[in-house]
Amino acid sequence: ETVPNVVETDPNPLTCPVCLDSKAQIQASSRNLVSTKCGHVFCSFCIEQVFKSTRQCPQCRKKLTNKCWHPLYI
Amino acid sequence: ETVPNVVETDPNPLTCPVCLDSKAQIQASSRNLVSTKCGHVFCSFCIEQVFKSTRQCPQCRKKLTNKCWHPLYI
Ligand SMILES: [Zn+2]
Ligand SMILES: [Zn+2]
Ligand SMILES: [Zn+2]
Ligand SMILES: [Zn+2]
Repeated sequence: ETVPNVVETDPNPLTCPVCLDSKAQIQASSRNLVSTKCGHVFCSFCIEQVFKSTRQCPQCRKKLTNKCWHPLYI
Repeated sequence: ETVPNVVETDPNPLTCPVCLDSKAQIQASSRNLVSTKCGHVFCSFCIEQVFKSTRQCPQCRKKLTNKCWHPLYI
């Protein structure tokens, strides 16, 4: 299968699934995008809130420990 | 600063900085997007190659160890 080598618009633009803010909104408001080890992406504000409350990944329910996420430079 | 709440096209569409393939090309060819702990994003093929050779992150030169990356579900 050949994928055309053209500039694409992403059909799934990146948003935080908790607050629904877009990547641009997140970055314009001094938050970072972060990824959990389980590969799910949030804004840094929402992951901190989750870490203070349920400590489960909002996407897959895996347990979040202290070092389970990192900033994502995209 | 207010960020307009509209659908945006990302001015920095996601690509693997090693092979330059887009997210769509990566996903259409049975590769994954992966993130390193240092927060840099590659395709799974390129990160495996790097791990077999220099073992340094191509973006920031941090040492890559075995568990230093994970799939990214975006
Ligand atoms: Zn959020
Ligand atoms: Zn998860
Ligand atoms: Zn690649
Ligand atoms: Zn790096």
